[in-house]
Amino acid sequence: MKAIAREVKALTFDVFGTVVDWRGSLIEEGKRLGRRKRLKVDWAAFADAWRGGYRPAMDRVRRGELPWTNIDGLHRMILDELLVKFGIGALAEGDKDHFNRAWHRLAPWKEAPAGLKRLKKKFVIATLSNGNVALLTNMAKHGGLPWDCVLSAELFGHYKPDPEAYQGAARLLGLSPGEVLMVAAHKDDLDAAARAGLRTAHVARPLEFGDAAKKDVAPEKRFDVNAKDFVDLARQLGC
Amino acid sequence: MKAIAREVKALTFDVFGTVVDWRGSLIEEGKRLGRRKRLKVDWAAFADAWRGGYRPAMDRVRRGELPWTNIDGLHRMILDELLVKFGIGALAEGDKDHFNRAWHRLAPWKEAPAGLKRLKKKFVIATLSNGNVALLTNMAKHGGLPWDCVLSAELFGHYKPDPEAYQGAARLLGLSPGEVLMVAAHKDDLDAAARAGLRTAHVARPLEFGDAAKKDVAPEKRFDVNAKDFVDLARQLGC
Repeated sequence: MKAIAREVKALTFDVFGTVVDWRGSLIEEGKRLGRRKRLKVDWAAFADAWRGGYRPAMDRVRRGELPWTNIDGLHRMILDELLVKFGIGALAEGDKDHFNRAWHRLAPWKEAPAGLKRLKKKFVIATLSNGNVALLTNMAKHGGLPWDCVLSAELFGHYKPDPEAYQGAARLLGLSPGEVLMVAAHKDDLDAAARAGLRTAHVARPLEFGDAAKKDVAPEKRFDVNAKDFVDLARQLGC
Repeated sequence: MKAIAREVKALTFDVFGTVVDWRGSLIEEGKRLGRRKRLKVDWAAFADAWRGGYRPAMDRVRRGELPWTNIDGLHRMILDELLVKFGIGALAEGDKDHFNRAWHRLAPWKEAPAGLKRLKKKFVIATLSNGNVALLTNMAKHGGLPWDCVLSAELFGHYKPDPEAYQGAARLLGLSPGEVLMVAAHKDDLDAAARAGLRTAHVARPLEFGDAAKKDVAPEKRFDVNAKDFVDLARQLGC
């Protein structure tokens, strides 16, 4: 068991890509919509474009070019553009809203619920996602994710990687930043967490962007823990 | 099953007195401290005084006489006064801090965890307490309370009964106030929730203030639901 397991009290988790397979789930939701509406669409390309639009939209909020808009709102702005771009007309408002909420129904990576249950026995486990509270709450219910607490950038009015998000999470948990271990499959998220004073655990999610995409999942010495998945993380933390 | 069960999507719960037996738990914690430190104290009177100090302290925050202070901070201010008043000297800082966190370890009313598990199958269940996020999160872990989401006055910078707390909870859950059912054992909490547009469920907790104390637990027509306990509430809501 690593020494850090005695130093941290809570684990905060990035969610999109780290806990849930957004790409696989969106493709499935797209195919379902396509069958129902007889649409011919490359749903993998659609999913990638939807996710691809998120960072630029969020950065507009971070730079103050857009007022605070939660992720449901940003996803919908991007969706409305993509429906035009992919030539998908004639969707009723109810269909668009339901499709936008596909993000509330993303499926966890296979071992994630079991790994979280093990980690929960020893640590407080919380989300720390740019997803909004309703999205994260519905997703947890849908996917059986046993969070002790749902924390979101929405509570701080600051999206990750702003330091306010990481430090705000520690504050709400009643802990110092050094007592919180940020878990993510994205190195830039972990580097920002470390700058805000949190500890870091990298989890490899090589299939996040699909089979064909290359993703940098190499372990890094600068992170406190490098794990293959949540079950491996639980093992390394002595759960 | 009541019609309201089809209209609401989420249940928000008052916590102190509604979900957990603060008085019985504090008396037990006091007795434990007393045995360890050889103190002769009327712990029932101490518990009542600690709880009694909370509303005036919170109202000072609500009126702007104190800057935002979370419940851990308010409990500690009151505790420090009571230690003097009850003649309890010579407690180390660690002992005081541990005793102050007795509020993080309050035990649920006997049927509460089972009732919540039933309600959770059909509804989003969340706290809506003046307790801070860390307190509520630790309490849930300690008492096995299966919240989907931990919501607190702390997230809104407004204590109940300010409308911002009730409306903020609905907003974070992505719902209109009328889709949220406030559950509480205190009629003033429910009346404030109703003024903010939420639906209301009263739960009788006749022993909240002890065997001897009289508490008004009569059902009221103005509430959408009147229940004996959480299992009865689940039954009435068709869970």
